[in-house]
Amino acid sequence: MGKEQDIELIKKYQKEIFLFSQAYALLHWDLETYMPKKGAECRAEQMALLESLSHEKLISDELWEALERLKEEDLSEDDDIMVKRLYKDCEKARKIPKELIEELARATSLGTIAWRQAREEKDFKIFEPHLKKIIKLKRKEAECINLPGYLYNSLLDKYEEGMTVEELRLRFEGLKKGIIALLQKIKDSGRYKTQKVILKKKEFPEPYQMELVRDVAQKIGLGKDFSRIDFSEHPFTTSIGSGDVRFTTNIREDPLFSFYSSMHEAGHALYEAGLPKEHFLTVLYDAPSLGMHESQSRFWENMIGKGQAFWKYYFERFNRRFGIDDFDKWYREVNIVEPSMIRIESDEVHYPLHIILRFEIELGLLEGTIQVEELPKIWNKKMREYFGIEPQNDKQGVLQDVHWSQGSIGYFPTYILGSIYAAQLYEALKKEYPNIEKDIEKGDFMRIQQWLKENIHKHGRKYLADEIIKNTCGEGLNPDAYLDYLRKKYSKIYAF
Amino acid sequence: MGKEQDIELIKKYQKEIFLFSQAYALLHWDLETYMPKKGAECRAEQMALLESLSHEKLISDELWEALERLKEEDLSEDDDIMVKRLYKDCEKARKIPKELIEELARATSLGTIAWRQAREEKDFKIFEPHLKKIIKLKRKEAECINLPGYLYNSLLDKYEEGMTVEELRLRFEGLKKGIIALLQKIKDSGRYKTQKVILKKKEFPEPYQMELVRDVAQKIGLGKDFSRIDFSEHPFTTSIGSGDVRFTTNIREDPLFSFYSSMHEAGHALYEAGLPKEHFLTVLYDAPSLGMHESQSRFWENMIGKGQAFWKYYFERFNRRFGIDDFDKWYREVNIVEPSMIRIESDEVHYPLHIILRFEIELGLLEGTIQVEELPKIWNKKMREYFGIEPQNDKQGVLQDVHWSQGSIGYFPTYILGSIYAAQLYEALKKEYPNIEKDIEKGDFMRIQQWLKENIHKHGRKYLADEIIKNTCGEGLNPDAYLDYLRKKYSKIYAF
Repeated sequence: MGKEQDIELIKKYQKEIFLFSQAYALLHWDLETYMPKKGAECRAEQMALLESLSHEKLISDELWEALERLKEEDLSEDDDIMVKRLYKDCEKARKIPKELIEELARATSLGTIAWRQAREEKDFKIFEPHLKKIIKLKRKEAECINLPGYLYNSLLDKYEEGMTVEELRLRFEGLKKGIIALLQKIKDSGRYKTQKVILKKKEFPEPYQMELVRDVAQKIGLGKDFSRIDFSEHPFTTSIGSGDVRFTTNIREDPLFSFYSSMHEAGHALYEAGLPKEHFLTVLYDAPSLGMHESQSRFWENMIGKGQAFWKYYFERFNRRFGIDDFDKWYREVNIVEPSMIRIESDEVHYPLHIILRFEIELGLLEGTIQVEELPKIWNKKMREYFGIEPQNDKQGVLQDVHWSQGSIGYFPTYILGSIYAAQLYEALKKEYPNIEKDIEKGDFMRIQQWLKENIHKHGRKYLADEIIKNTCGEGLNPDAYLDYLRKKYSKIYAF
Repeated sequence: MGKEQDIELIKKYQKEIFLFSQAYALLHWDLETYMPKKGAECRAEQMALLESLSHEKLISDELWEALERLKEEDLSEDDDIMVKRLYKDCEKARKIPKELIEELARATSLGTIAWRQAREEKDFKIFEPHLKKIIKLKRKEAECINLPGYLYNSLLDKYEEGMTVEELRLRFEGLKKGIIALLQKIKDSGRYKTQKVILKKKEFPEPYQMELVRDVAQKIGLGKDFSRIDFSEHPFTTSIGSGDVRFTTNIREDPLFSFYSSMHEAGHALYEAGLPKEHFLTVLYDAPSLGMHESQSRFWENMIGKGQAFWKYYFERFNRRFGIDDFDKWYREVNIVEPSMIRIESDEVHYPLHIILRFEIELGLLEGTIQVEELPKIWNKKMREYFGIEPQNDKQGVLQDVHWSQGSIGYFPTYILGSIYAAQLYEALKKEYPNIEKDIEKGDFMRIQQWLKENIHKHGRKYLADEIIKNTCGEGLNPDAYLDYLRKKYSKIYAF
């Protein structure tokens, strides 16, 4: 077959794979938002069928042979990179035996149910045998993929292409030390010692919360004609195809939960909406990694949404309702630093510690230096060590996250990478537009949105995350940028 | 291959076909309810892919060969009928060439767009060339299917298995005469001559309408755990799988539009929810025909929802709001008879005439005795003849229904069949439970729901519609039952 026919063939395959995954995305979105309870069993079958069809396409010999031929050809830059990415995806998929995939699907499906029950009953023992099985299977999966170095690398690569344990360890070590030192300064400050949580205990009726969520999503660039917002237990973002991105939110006790979770998800949604249309229905219409994706959500949630400039613009809409009429008081309260048991309730400063704790544990589990039955003990010990607090029960501790029950090992580090990338991007943005905060104060986010689209979104998956960051920020992953950002911000907030 | 393996094989095929069609149903439901505008293009591709996969499965040689073998085998009663139905579906699908299917998909997709524009601009000329093309292709399709008798039979059979032009003509002739005679009596009555429309001109705020819609759907048996109600431009019912039926409604000028359209759709939804679970993911988990399906929606909308007993129960919730505090006045107003241009705004008495008009025209189009360009003239002439009124423009006339633009020729008759079956069923129900109206007056619909489930729903597609009606009502399709029902009801309402 000729080069052109092969390109056509692999595009046809990609088109079908991505149309399947879009239909799958809608089935999942509906499951989380509107599906009647009794539809669950059948929905699982519908999703399993689409997933298996998509997988069959990905591992088909016809596709593989075309890719093998194309690898030897002289291609245009875009086709070349498309072939390279798709080749790697296929290669990895073809390494994992069908039986292992099925075993994993069963184990994680039962595991998620068990995790839910264990969490409800605050009893890790219920989840323990399931997690053991899952770890065993994930180890097998990693052995099949067999990337160099740590076994963990083979799993991590799925979420953060090109990243390794070796590099993470190096980066996280300095970050951990820097955060702990910064926390010490914060805790020694007079303001910390006398701080009181007011805001989180206030009531904020749902209609007002939703009004603000819709307002802010639209302001930062999510038009109604290509996006929508719904409710689900856990907020998430999904894309059902070109021209249709959706995120969800929820109303929780914290009156700002919906607002910040929405800014976060809106950041993800803007990324999806900004992907390069010319590569739609190919592997290049995607983010290079979850860390890169997370950088966009963190950017909007933290760098913008928790910044002084943003609140200069938005404070008016809150102060009357909450009776906090002093701007500085409000800004400090929004950024209050306090150790928390729960990762998703964490402030920006403590956040990396939550992740490092999980990374250390899941790495140990996979490498065999930590046993599943020791988990609650180890978890609580690390919490005491890093946070100075200890969970009252497993629900507040080792059972708080769904990830492991779903077999997502190697996923957690991407959360920190997102924060670091976001800080680096914010620095680069301010270097290019020194007066960008003036825009934010006026509620004008157009320039920021365009800048992110130009520098991040429009590249899709053509470059690795690290390459994109290098091109935009002048250097690759650098945790010091995050530490700098935190130090500058919190030394002002806590006046030290 | 052995008999058991063949049965397993054909069940596997059916499972995949029906899981595809469920995913398709969700994509369609979402398209009509929540999808952002810009998702449309991609949605069309997603739906087309699932449809073509499902069709490929249906016409696969492996499936066909298994069916050929199974036809010769001695099977259990259920397997035997499953094989028979599936064989017929496959046989029909295999007769239509792929090119024709694709041509039809294109023509109807463009046709629907043109129809919409034509309707907006009230100009049949815009739609005319598209309809010509569609009729030509539908004629080809009918020639491929090639059932005995009229060409039209081959299309009709898709919607109403086993029904023929010959039988419809016979039934419709008497019905038309009976209706016209009844209308004459109504129009001659004193009440008709002095009647005034009050209700339809009243305001009824959306939240109240929706409160009643939700209330009535739940009362007649649609629990929240397996059903839901949303909004769409045109009300419809869909089933996304076992345990997940959904219908939509809309708010229009007529304050009772949402209420009655919801009772109608709820009837469809109850049918879907009542299908035999043991045949889920096979051809038997379906209604035998659209007419049978429509009988369930008409039953709840008309026989129950427009009956005196029902309003004795429900009147209280309306009278305060509408200021009609006289029960008889209310009941008469709900059942007011008046010729209307628009089919879906028609009363029960005129309704069959709307359908007969369409049936006569589409039969003529297919058989070649009516030309597409004559349509507006013929339509208006028949309106004058049957209704005594004439459309002001094509939007009020020949352009009011979407069906032909979608290639649905042979669909309209199922609407009357539904009304007739509904009347027959109501008669049979009252024979079995002479005091059933006492239940209705108390708002207790349990017995009716159970009776419909036992006599209709639970059979799925094991029997033809006519067989089910014969078993339940003691005789097959009989338009006189509908005429009797109308005569009894309307002679009281119009006091003649």
